[in-house]
Order: sequence, then structure tokens, then C-alpha cells
Amino acid sequence: MSYDLVIKNGLLITASESFIADVAISGERIAAIGTDLSGGREIDARGLYVLPGAIDGHVHLTDPTYPPYSIPTADSFGSGTVAAAFGGVTTVIDFAQPAPGQSLIEGLDRRQEDADGHAVVDYALHLTLRDRDPARLAEVPAVFQRGVPSFKFFMAYEGYRLDDVAMFRAMEAVAAHDGLAIVHAENFDIITELRRRLRAERKFGPRWHVAACPSVAEGEAVHRALALAHLAGARVLIYHQSCIEGLREIRLAKARGQAAFGEVCVQYLVLTDEVYERDDLTAQALAISPPLRGKEHQAALWQGLADGTLDIVSTDHNPRHRQDQPLHHPPGTSSIETRLALMHTFGVKAGRLSLNRWVEVCCSRPARVFGLTGKGRLAPNYDADIVLFDPTVEVALTTGTLHSSIGFCTYEGMRTIGFPVMTISRGEAIVENGNFVGKPGRGRFVERGF
Amino acid sequence: MSYDLVIKNGLLITASESFIADVAISGERIAAIGTDLSGGREIDARGLYVLPGAIDGHVHLTDPTYPPYSIPTADSFGSGTVAAAFGGVTTVIDFAQPAPGQSLIEGLDRRQEDADGHAVVDYALHLTLRDRDPARLAEVPAVFQRGVPSFKFFMAYEGYRLDDVAMFRAMEAVAAHDGLAIVHAENFDIITELRRRLRAERKFGPRWHVAACPSVAEGEAVHRALALAHLAGARVLIYHQSCIEGLREIRLAKARGQAAFGEVCVQYLVLTDEVYERDDLTAQALAISPPLRGKEHQAALWQGLADGTLDIVSTDHNPRHRQDQPLHHPPGTSSIETRLALMHTFGVKAGRLSLNRWVEVCCSRPARVFGLTGKGRLAPNYDADIVLFDPTVEVALTTGTLHSSIGFCTYEGMRTIGFPVMTISRGEAIVENGNFVGKPGRGRFVERGF
Amino acid sequence: MSYDLVIKNGLLITASESFIADVAISGERIAAIGTDLSGGREIDARGLYVLPGAIDGHVHLTDPTYPPYSIPTADSFGSGTVAAAFGGVTTVIDFAQPAPGQSLIEGLDRRQEDADGHAVVDYALHLTLRDRDPARLAEVPAVFQRGVPSFKFFMAYEGYRLDDVAMFRAMEAVAAHDGLAIVHAENFDIITELRRRLRAERKFGPRWHVAACPSVAEGEAVHRALALAHLAGARVLIYHQSCIEGLREIRLAKARGQAAFGEVCVQYLVLTDEVYERDDLTAQALAISPPLRGKEHQAALWQGLADGTLDIVSTDHNPRHRQDQPLHHPPGTSSIETRLALMHTFGVKAGRLSLNRWVEVCCSRPARVFGLTGKGRLAPNYDADIVLFDPTVEVALTTGTLHSSIGFCTYEGMRTIGFPVMTISRGEAIVENGNFVGKPGRGRFVERGF
Amino acid sequence: MSYDLVIKNGLLITASESFIADVAISGERIAAIGTDLSGGREIDARGLYVLPGAIDGHVHLTDPTYPPYSIPTADSFGSGTVAAAFGGVTTVIDFAQPAPGQSLIEGLDRRQEDADGHAVVDYALHLTLRDRDPARLAEVPAVFQRGVPSFKFFMAYEGYRLDDVAMFRAMEAVAAHDGLAIVHAENFDIITELRRRLRAERKFGPRWHVAACPSVAEGEAVHRALALAHLAGARVLIYHQSCIEGLREIRLAKARGQAAFGEVCVQYLVLTDEVYERDDLTAQALAISPPLRGKEHQAALWQGLADGTLDIVSTDHNPRHRQDQPLHHPPGTSSIETRLALMHTFGVKAGRLSLNRWVEVCCSRPARVFGLTGKGRLAPNYDADIVLFDPTVEVALTTGTLHSSIGFCTYEGMRTIGFPVMTISRGEAIVENGNFVGKPGRGRFVERGF
Repeated sequence: MSYDLVIKNGLLITASESFIADVAISGERIAAIGTDLSGGREIDARGLYVLPGAIDGHVHLTDPTYPPYSIPTADSFGSGTVAAAFGGVTTVIDFAQPAPGQSLIEGLDRRQEDADGHAVVDYALHLTLRDRDPARLAEVPAVFQRGVPSFKFFMAYEGYRLDDVAMFRAMEAVAAHDGLAIVHAENFDIITELRRRLRAERKFGPRWHVAACPSVAEGEAVHRALALAHLAGARVLIYHQSCIEGLREIRLAKARGQAAFGEVCVQYLVLTDEVYERDDLTAQALAISPPLRGKEHQAALWQGLADGTLDIVSTDHNPRHRQDQPLHHPPGTSSIETRLALMHTFGVKAGRLSLNRWVEVCCSRPARVFGLTGKGRLAPNYDADIVLFDPTVEVALTTGTLHSSIGFCTYEGMRTIGFPVMTISRGEAIVENGNFVGKPGRGRFVERGF
Repeated sequence: MSYDLVIKNGLLITASESFIADVAISGERIAAIGTDLSGGREIDARGLYVLPGAIDGHVHLTDPTYPPYSIPTADSFGSGTVAAAFGGVTTVIDFAQPAPGQSLIEGLDRRQEDADGHAVVDYALHLTLRDRDPARLAEVPAVFQRGVPSFKFFMAYEGYRLDDVAMFRAMEAVAAHDGLAIVHAENFDIITELRRRLRAERKFGPRWHVAACPSVAEGEAVHRALALAHLAGARVLIYHQSCIEGLREIRLAKARGQAAFGEVCVQYLVLTDEVYERDDLTAQALAISPPLRGKEHQAALWQGLADGTLDIVSTDHNPRHRQDQPLHHPPGTSSIETRLALMHTFGVKAGRLSLNRWVEVCCSRPARVFGLTGKGRLAPNYDADIVLFDPTVEVALTTGTLHSSIGFCTYEGMRTIGFPVMTISRGEAIVENGNFVGKPGRGRFVERGF
Repeated sequence: MSYDLVIKNGLLITASESFIADVAISGERIAAIGTDLSGGREIDARGLYVLPGAIDGHVHLTDPTYPPYSIPTADSFGSGTVAAAFGGVTTVIDFAQPAPGQSLIEGLDRRQEDADGHAVVDYALHLTLRDRDPARLAEVPAVFQRGVPSFKFFMAYEGYRLDDVAMFRAMEAVAAHDGLAIVHAENFDIITELRRRLRAERKFGPRWHVAACPSVAEGEAVHRALALAHLAGARVLIYHQSCIEGLREIRLAKARGQAAFGEVCVQYLVLTDEVYERDDLTAQALAISPPLRGKEHQAALWQGLADGTLDIVSTDHNPRHRQDQPLHHPPGTSSIETRLALMHTFGVKAGRLSLNRWVEVCCSRPARVFGLTGKGRLAPNYDADIVLFDPTVEVALTTGTLHSSIGFCTYEGMRTIGFPVMTISRGEAIVENGNFVGKPGRGRFVERGF
Repeated sequence: MSYDLVIKNGLLITASESFIADVAISGERIAAIGTDLSGGREIDARGLYVLPGAIDGHVHLTDPTYPPYSIPTADSFGSGTVAAAFGGVTTVIDFAQPAPGQSLIEGLDRRQEDADGHAVVDYALHLTLRDRDPARLAEVPAVFQRGVPSFKFFMAYEGYRLDDVAMFRAMEAVAAHDGLAIVHAENFDIITELRRRLRAERKFGPRWHVAACPSVAEGEAVHRALALAHLAGARVLIYHQSCIEGLREIRLAKARGQAAFGEVCVQYLVLTDEVYERDDLTAQALAISPPLRGKEHQAALWQGLADGTLDIVSTDHNPRHRQDQPLHHPPGTSSIETRLALMHTFGVKAGRLSLNRWVEVCCSRPARVFGLTGKGRLAPNYDADIVLFDPTVEVALTTGTLHSSIGFCTYEGMRTIGFPVMTISRGEAIVENGNFVGKPGRGRFVERGF
């Protein structure tokens, strides 16, 4: 039997094993994992890692109005997914965020229009529920039928945030269809109050960002979100964990048998609040919410990632172009291309994660957590989304070598050990020899379910 | 030297010791604790316990509009403090609850008018802050100057509850004067939502009370209140703990060094949610918030009281007269007279508390927690508030033998081992030989401070 | 390309995914996982689960002198591995237990002689270190070179137990080669003392077994073993967890980042100490150490297995023939054939474990924990150890239908939902159509490493 | 009524209150606490603190053979109790340590001979059980009858240590009389092994002391001691807590309702392991067991003392004269005179303890924990053991100003804020105006009980 494409002799790394084998692809899917397989095209992967394509379950592309700044994202679905492809990411999950009063289905339609014909890797959507009107929940079944089983709830940002009851009701609606509730958990009222005071004292800028967003206010909201999900019987994922307080709550929720998951974004693992002492554009861009925190929080995050308290690593990719006033750059980081390499560098090579855990948190477990049933595995009939990763190449991170449209690099001056060298999406090599070679707009919307 | 009054040869019990001695009183104060003291009047206390007068830091008397029912309390300051006196209580702390928009000082004035000339034991007031307007906090210093250093915050009940920011600001104002924040902690929005649904399913009455008020919703609010107090730097007391979830939070707060205190009311220690299965008036009266809970919660409360997680035992005395519609009796329990005896019976005699811990949680520690600097101790210059307690007498609890104006007994059919037999308030025997012998309206407002 | 054997269209279940595919085998190894594969023999697995062969990392076969009774095991390596094969087990790990004073290598040699030519599935050996003489540790490197990287330490049983220092030194020697320390953790001195007293009061038999072996004495030893492993820097597996106390210690060890693992045996998950109330042979056989415990402990074990505190499920298979005196049957249970089916029944079907977690704890994770690098996966170049499991067949457990040589059934009267219907070992179908069809003595010693 | 002695107008500080009053003494006992009391002698205590005499429940005087060095203590019962008196200590508890084989009663007799006629403050004795022979436990009732209800068990030191079973049996014997088990908890075998290795590498001296005594080895023994006490039903006090690991165990034991107490010695609260970097005599003297530890452990000890995890503060006063070889000074610290002042300085003045908690842990709670029923309180009929403490005087700690016979000062160069200025023992002023004015050998043996 001859396959269309065979990746030969690479070290396959999955969430639980590492072994040398061939991967055979027929059409868009993996046809076989085996030895001595042959195909129309054969790629020699000797010395390379062969991984399931990375999944980034938390990105913001072509997003004109994302809080808290009404400044467009630097990356469109086009430029953002090209950068993703260079970074070994074969699926991104973005958000439909219908405004209060707007139909959820209509919001989904509009959002797919943003992406279709532009995205070059597959994409899915979470539905951000901003509408507190319980009548809006009548549309939830229709959203599920569209292959969108995960709902994002904000506890922060005016125009986005839900109150406890609205979130509780929505969690129940999600639970009724066995979906996933995702929460941005911060006590926004307290943060707003603290920020208001700092401003009254003329304390602006990144230097005061952590003071406005104490970890206790984050831990409070994590506890509340988990309590409400527990009452609602909903599976729940807490986004972008940054601190010891939140980790404690997730650990306790898991220990009482709750289906609670934790996400950390790569920037929290690699950077600390020391960056805020610089008074520059990068510091402003890094004034994300929740904020980067101190070393003791970062060490706890790595420990939580290793011991399973945290389930997945994403990016919250959300770079923003500079405003006219350079002193007020909106926050937003760019990690869509660098996550896999950074996690290899600071996780695997630094002895904090095993190779298998690295693949699990970046590639496989996101598929499970988000219901991407046909992705995230090196197994027959799964989509042939595959990355070839060279563990030895060293890459200096800087604007010129990366592919996001943003004009500066979140990790400027840092170096990775290892980087993706080929990315295959549904059987098609789309990044090869340092070039993007896929067809523009080839990415497809992926229906999900549990 | 001859004293006015000497209590001779009783077993003095304090928070930390038990010893036989005489207590000598001059005027309104204790003059000496000694041996072989003599006085104008001598009371033979041989075989009796001599305790500091019990303090009930949580009562509602002459209260026309207390949530959630607009039905007056059965007890006025007059009848309620007479019942208190029979129960060995020499100080009660009630609440001034100025309406939003009303001056706090004016609220205090009105409330003192309710009490002055009626109360027969000394009383103090907490200030219930219902006003979310931060401008109202300008009156906080004046309230402190009136000897009112404790502020009650509701997280429940419309017209009473504060939102997170209002409570946080108020906690800071309290912290600035080294006062005490007191919190009724329940997630009211969630409870309201659950109750609304039960009603929509025609599920009324005590039988459904716990379903509307799950312990998780209480634990959530306790965590939130403690987090906000931690941020505000305020000493905080959580009222009427009922459940394992809340205890966990208080325990963790104490372990991180926070000045966090816990109160439990005697009804939670003596009764369980089994009473709700009866469909009678008592069950309705016991449908308090938070609700009575199951045996496993009750066992945890006793353990928490013994190990110091809970600091004090109060009553939330708040009996309500029956409405016209007997099927909708408002909730509210009456324990102002029975607390000391019930705690002796179910605590000391049942082996759950030592004699000293009994006195500590009912008499001494409340003085410390609430800033009653001149009360709660058997020591010179302290107010001569003293109870003689007969540990052997058995009393059947029933309406006829108790002194609250309420027409039925919360603990109907239960028996206590031990009961107060004489109560002395500021040197004056006010209950003696089964009769109230004090002057009507003799109670005074007590200024407090820390 | 044509393979020797292809299992077609089964539902492959791994630790992290479930998908329909074919498994192709060439010689002794898996050659490919794919679709539309064809081979010399094709097995239709439609409607069946296809799993990696189960691994039982804790068995005692042909064991004449195992404590505490010097009565031979009922099962030889021959009969025991036949029973294993029927139960879907393709690898067992037994023990070389050289006597104090005996060379470890010689002990290994003797033990391989017991097995070679008898075992019908592959086997490996742990080295039970009984010798307290530190000089004996000089042989540790040679043991590792023999492919034996796991050392068992007893904290119980005279002639077997090590004291703290001997165990600590041995753990360090194991850690120096990156091996695995395995511990039977009970405070034997205390248990011996308690048992002595019970006997002095003429309290014999299973009815008094738990009284002699309190969970606190087990938790104490678990804590001690974990502390010593922590000091020694050794990876450590605690065998046969039975109680809440031990779980607490493993959970805390994992949370501090220690490489600590927990095993539970299937009998602790399926039976409770109620069996001891019967005064029969089965109760005697079940008087294992640590003992079966109460329902609250069992519930905690299931929770710990689901949340990852416990890593693997084994059997401690160790059936003993009846003695002449039927009233003193030695303890020892037989689960080698029933584990996979029991875990499916009481785990998966009862909603306590997912299908993937079931395979993980029975098949895949044991390979990782014990260093069986070529087993436990459905992946190319791994040994073609495969089970076909029919999830719908119901089997009544009784002596007659099982294959251990023991004359009675540990689970007599219980029924499983699901049972293995075909077992393939290194590419050879050895159980098929209800018969053992493999060559006698075909099992091989497997070298292990990490 | 006129009393023998009245201390007028001091600020009385007890475990729970602070108030200005007079203390009247008749004979050896407190006769009254009151106002306007008058007596034959009146002492003006205006501006001074009046405390119950401090109790040091952990001292070693006139001790020729205390492990691990056979060098006599520097202080006899005479010199040691004079130093105690200067430090405001009115009761010390030392040890009778009968050798294995020796009658316990005889041991008590011999020890009382050491003390009687020499001690100048009252003393009591713990019985250190060194004998593993269970027959020796037959003497336990007689020891109790001698007023010795507390038994010390060593888990360390050859000739002293008990194994688990011997300690468990002894704990049961102690529990049968409602006594107190006291434990020196370290895993001595592991420590001995580690020390042996360090010595083999020629790593001697204080610099290596912590490496030989890791906190994990202490935590292990604390867990074990608490588990055995739990099984035995014995009240248990763990001596000289030094580390986070031990605190965790005591906290968990208390949370499960166990009667478990913790002691910390003042040196662990005031000094850290930094002193070991000096290579001098003081470092050698401070190489105590368990060792001084790092700042994070010390912070945890203060927190544990404040939140009640630790119950009392003692000294383990045990200074040793220099040997001939000055490089091998035996360990042993001298705090008998400085504890109260050091705890005032580093506890109260540093904001870590309230005044009342200071008195509680140094004076009152030791009386309760050790069964000194007539001491530790400012109440009638209690022994008139009273300290006048000047909270403003500053004292430089140095050999010349202190009264122990040891030739150097554990806290050389440190200053205290506050110091005792008068010590009264059973009604007799024994330290006054900087002089010891009591009768030599006036101290009495105190019988204790619970």
C-alpha cells in the first residue's frame, strides 16, 4: 500500500510515549503509524521530533473591540495563522463575542466571515456570552449544534462581564449540553476601585499594574467561578492562571472531584513582573490582565503544570498596534508563534517538564479539554496535523524573524533551543524550508463536541 | 475592708482557670477576687459556678423591619433583655441600621432611643452600614467616637446588602480606626435565583430551604468576605457559620495570619436540618439564613469551636410573632435565655468543650472580639456582671418557663442540664430566686473600643 | 505491504484516546496502526475494545516462603501466567527475594530458573532487598545491568523488613542509578504489638484483623517511607494503598514535587472490611496486609485513582492453598485474571473512571512506572501485546470458570460486565475462543530501564 | 483586712486581659486581686507589668550525663534557679532520667536529692523513661502518685531513645492515668547515618550540623510520635519544634481533634542557622538538636506561636562548660534568665505577639499543659509567684550581667527591651533591686496532676 505522504524515522512524541516510527498520510488524515511505510512523498525526519500539531485554545485575531482598549489587534486571521503555522500550531480557537442584544448565531456567522478565506490553519470558536438577558440562553442549543460547545464568561470588563447569576445560569445551560464553561476570573470591581485610586494619585502605567490587580482579587474570583460551576454541575476551565491563590483553588476543586481545569499562558511562565520596572512600550504591552507576577508565583505555576493542577498552555495572543500616544500602548502579548519553542526551552530543557508532558500541555490535552475530537493525536483517522520540531536549532526571538504583524517582539532578546521546522496541516505541508507554502485562506472552521 | 456585696465560695470559672474564691463588689464594679472577703451582703455560692456575665453579641430587639420579613420582632428591648437576664446574659449587642440616605449618627440616636429606658441589662450597638454611597463613610469617625467600633455588612437582603466595592471601602474605613468588620456572608444573588426557581416549581416552605441556600453559596461568600478584608487590612468576624465550606475558609485565613474570627449561633450547634421535614410553625421559624444543616456540618462546627477556628457563640436572637397566615411564619429563633445552658448541656456535659472553653466562647472572648473593654472578666475594676450557674439543675425548655415574648419555644421539648440561678449586673442582683428583681429600664449603653 | 496479523476495526483505547483503527503486527511487534491494513491473518474486532496488554506489576508466583506464612503459593509461574493470559495480562512482574546473606545476582538467577520454561506471558522481576548489610549494596549496579531497576523494601515481616537506615541507604543506591524504590509501608512493630495483645485476649481470626492493623499505623509508615525517599532523592512507589491516611501523604508528596507514586490493588477497590465479619475461609484468605478497610476509605481510593494521586492498579496476586487446619488459612488473594474486568465493571461502568483512565491505570502507566519501555502502548515497534475486550459479555466469577490453581474464588458470587476474549502476546494469540492456545513456557524475562 | 504583702497599681497581664489592680498576698498564696488593698508591705508597681511567675517546663540542671555529651551542665540546681529567678521564672521543670534497669522511683528520689536544698525557686520533674523493658511500666502508677504526671520519651540518643513499641506502650500507660507524653522527635538513625558520612568526609563542626539533621528527618519523627500518641489515646507534647515540617504535623493533629501540643524554645525564635557559619565556641554551643534553622522556618514558628499551633515557649536550658579541647565544645544553650525578656523584645515589641499571648505562652499555658494546678495564674489561692516586669528598661545581654554559671552568653551582643525587676516566689520577694535576696535552697518540689 502506498500513502500520499510518509514522514520517516522521526521520534514521535505523544502525551505518554516517545518512539521512532513512520507516519503515513492519505489525503487529509493520518492513515497509519508504522515502520517501513512508503508513500508518494517521503520526508526524512531523522533527528527531528514529530508531534501532533500544537493547538492554541486562546487567541484573538482580527478583533476590533476587545477590551479594555478599542484598538484593533495587530493580527488578522490571515497574518495570525501564518505566524501560528510557523510556530507549529495547526489549530487556533478564537472567539465569537456577540454584543448584548445580538443573536449568538448571528455573532457566530459574522465571526466565521472574519476567518473564512483568511485563516491558513484550522480554527474553531468559543462563544463569549456577554448578554445577561436569560432569554439569550435559548440560543445555546443552536450554538452547540454549530459545533461550538465552549462558552467564555468574563468576570471583568464592562460590556463583557456577567454577574454571578447570569454566569450561573449560563453555566447550567452549558452543563445541560455537557459543554465547557471558560472563565476569565478577576474581581473586576475591586480592581477598578484600586486602579481608580492609583490614577487619583497620578500613578499610571505598568509600574502600578500589579498594585491594581492583587493576586488575592484573582484568587477570590477563581474561588467564586469554581463554586458556581460546582453548583451548576458544569465542567469549567479557568483561563490564564497567574498566581498561587488561584492554583490553590483549582487544586482543591480537583481534589473534591470537580471537573475543573486550569490554563496558563506561556508569558506567565517565561516572564515576571520585573518587566514592569522598565518604562517602555514592551512593559506597556505586557500590562496584561491578570498581570505577570513575581518569581514565587511563577515557580508555583511551573509546579502546578508539572503536577497536573494546570492542564494546558495557551497564549491569549492579542498583540495591539501602537497608538498615536506611545506612552499608552494597549496591553497584549504575541506568543502564537513562539509558545512551542519557549515551552521546550524553559520547560523541557530546563528540566521542569518531560518531553511527553510538553506535548501533552501544548498539543494533546487542549484537544481533549476543548472537544477537538479529530485532532491532537498521532493516530489513524485523526487529522494529519503534524509538526516537525528540531530540538537543537537555536533561534533568537526578535521582530524580524517572527511573522506576527505586530511591530515588536514580546520576548525580544530571548533565545529558544529548538523550533518547528515543518508544519503539516491536514496532510499539506504549509511551512517548509522557512517559507509559508500553503494556500492562502485554506483554514477551515472545525466543529467540536465532547 | 467591707465590700457592698460578696459572692462567697463559688467555683469561679474563667477562660483559662477554675478556682474557688470570693468575689467582692463595690458599687458597680468588682473590687476584689479573694478569700475570706466580707461585705454588706454575702451570697453563698457553694456548689455553684461563678462566671463573668454572658455576652450576646448578636441580637435583634424591637426591630420592625429586619429582613427578610417586615414583621416586628416579638421581643422589645424590655422583654428581650429580661429574658437575657434570666439566661445569665448581662450585655447584649444589637444593631443600629440606618436606612440608605439616613445619617449614621441619626440612626444611632434613634436606636438608642429604642433601648434607653427599656433595656434591663447593658447594651451596645453595631452599626449596620446599608448605604453604598461612599460619601456616607465620612461619618465613620463620628460613629467610632460614639463608642461604636464594629460595623456590620450584609452580603444578603435587598436594602441591606453592599456590593463588593462598597464593602471593601467600608472595611478600609473601619480598618483605618482599627475597628471590626462583621459580615453576613451568603451569595444572595445565587440564593435568590435558586429560591425563585423553587417557587416556580411550587416548592415552598422549610422543606426546600436548604436547597435554596446551599453550603457552597455560603462558603463562596465567606471566602470573598475574607479576601476583601485581607486586602483592606481589616479585622473581620464572620457571623453565624453553619457549614464545612465556611469553616475551611476561616481556618485558612487564620493560618495565613489574618485577623479573622468566626461566630456560630447556638441553634446551629443544637439543631439540624431534620427539623425542616416537619411542616409546622417551628420549622418555619427555624428557616433562618444561613439554614440549619446536616449532622456532618454540625460535627464540624463543634470541632471548629473546640480548636479555635470559631471564636464565639451568639444567638442572632430574632423571634417573630406569627403572621395572620399561619403557613408563612417568618423565620427567627429565640435563644437569648437558653444559650448558656444549652452550651453547658450539649458542649460541656457532652464532652465537646471544657468548662473554661465554655466560658471563653460565651462570656470572655466576645468581650475581646467586640471591644467591651470593661466586661467579660472576673477581675477588679471590671463591671460586676456576674452569673451564678447551677450545673446540676435540670430545666425543660418550653414557652411557659422562658421569658421571651414569643409564643413558642425554639427548643421545645429539650432539657438542659444546668441553668443560671442568679444574675448580677453592675453589682445589682437582677435575677434572683426565679424572679426578675432589677429596676425596669436600668440597662445602659456601653461604649466600646479596641 | 502485508503484515503477519491484523486486528481490524476494533475500538483502540489508549491512556488518552479512543478511536477505531486496525493494528498490524509483524513478527513479535506492532508494525502499524492504521486503516485498511491487511495481513496474513485478519481478526475482526468490530464491537470489541483493543487495548495494550494489561501489566500486573505485583504478583507472587511459585513462591514457597513469602511472609507471613511459609505455605507455597497456589500458582506456579505456569498456572499463574495462564490465568493472567485469560485475564488479558501480557506482562507480570514478580520478585526475586534473596535471603539475607545471599548474593542478589544469585537470587535473580534462582528466580529466573523458577520462571523460565514455565511462564506463558512475559515476566520481569523486582529485587526484594532483605539484607540490611550495607555491603550488599555493592551488587546494586549489577542488578541494574540485569535489567532489574526496581527494588522492593519491606517495612513489615521479620526476615524481610529493613530498618530506616538500611532502607535509606538502599534508596540512595537505587536513586544513584535512577531506579525505583517500592515500599510495603506498615509500622510492623506496632502491628505486631497490637496483634500480640489481641491474641493474649484470645482474639484470633479475620474479625480482629483491622484492629491489629489500624490505618494510622499504615499512614505513619507511608509518611516515613516518603520522607526517606525524599531525603534520598529516590523515585518511590508505595504499594497497596488502603486508606485515607496514606493517600493524604502521597497527595502531599506529589504537591511538593516529589516523584512519588501510589499503587492500589483491585481487591481494596471492590471489597471492604465487611467480609471479615464472615468467619469462613474466604475471610481468612482476605485477611491481607494492609487489610481491607471501610467504605469511606474505599471511596477515597476511587477518588485518588481518578484524580491521579494513585497511579496504577495491580493485584498482589498471592493465593495460598488451604492448610490442614482449615481455621488458619493463610491470607492471599487471587485477582490476576479478574483485574481488568473488575476495573471495567466497578470503575468504568460505575462511572468512576473513564475508559482511557481504565487503560492507563491497568496497562499503560504501569509500563511507565516500572520501566517496561517496549510495552504498554499501541504503537509501532512496541511489543505486540494486545487484548481484545468484549465490553458487553457478563461473567460470573467462580472457581470453575477461572484459571488460577487456587481452589476458591476471591470474588465468588460477583459478576463482571465485560471480559477479555482474546489475548495476544508478542504477536501470538495465546488465548482465543476460551482456550489457552499458546506454547507452554513461552514467556520471556523482560529487561527494564528508565 | 490587712494582707502580708500588696503589689499596688501595676498593670496585671494575664493570658486574656490586662488591667490595673492590686495583688494581695497572705503567706505563700495570693489572697486577693482588688483595688485599694493594703498590707504589711506595699510595693509600688506603677508603670510595671505584673505577671504570673514564668514557668520553664524544659530545663537541665546539675545534669552530669545528658546526651549526647558526658560533660556536666554548667548550672547546678542552685546557680540555675538563681538565674531563673532573675529572669522572672518561679517554677522550673527538670527531669529524672533513671538509667535502664534502675527503678523509676529511685531515679526520682535521687533527682530530688540533687535539687532539694539547692533550688531557690520551685521545681518539678518530668520522668524520662529510658528503659525499654515493659516490666518497668509497672512503676508508672507510683510515679503518678509522686506528683509526676509527665513522661519524656526520646526518639534520639543511644541509651535514651525508645523504639516505637516501647514508646507506644509507655504512651498507653501514661494515657491510662491521663498524663502527658512528651517527645523529643527526630529520626535518630537517619541523623546518625548522615553524621557518620559527613565525618567520613572530614566535615565536622557546626557548619555541617544542619546537613546532618535535615528538617525532613524531624518532620518524620513528629508525624510518627503524633501517630503513636493518637493510637495510644495519649495527650502529647512535642518538644522544641524547629521547622515547617513539624508544624504541619501538629497543625493537622490539632485539626483532627487530637490533644497534641507544641513547644518551641526561645533560641529557635531569636537565632537562625546563620550562626553556624561562624566557627567559634558560640556556634558550637548552638549546635543543638534539632538545629537552629533558616529564616523561613523561623517565620513559620512565630506564625505557629501566634495562631496556637505552638502552645508554649521554654528554653531547654542546658549550658555546658568548655572542654579541654576548645574546638569541641558540647552543644547547649542558656536562656533560663533571658526568655521572658527576649520574648517581650522579639515577640511583643516586634508586633508578633500580643501582651496577653506573651504571658500565655511563657507563664499561664505551661501551667495548664504541665499540670501545675496551683501556679501560673493571678488568682486567689494560687501560689503567689509573681514577676514585676519593667517594659522600658533596656538590657545588653552579656556574660557579666547574667547569672548562669556558664562562661559565655548565648545571646552575646543582643539587647532586650524590658526585663524583670522583681521576682516573688510563694509570697517572698527573692529578686529585688538587682540582688538575689531569697533564702538559699528555699525551692520546693511541686506535685503536679491534671
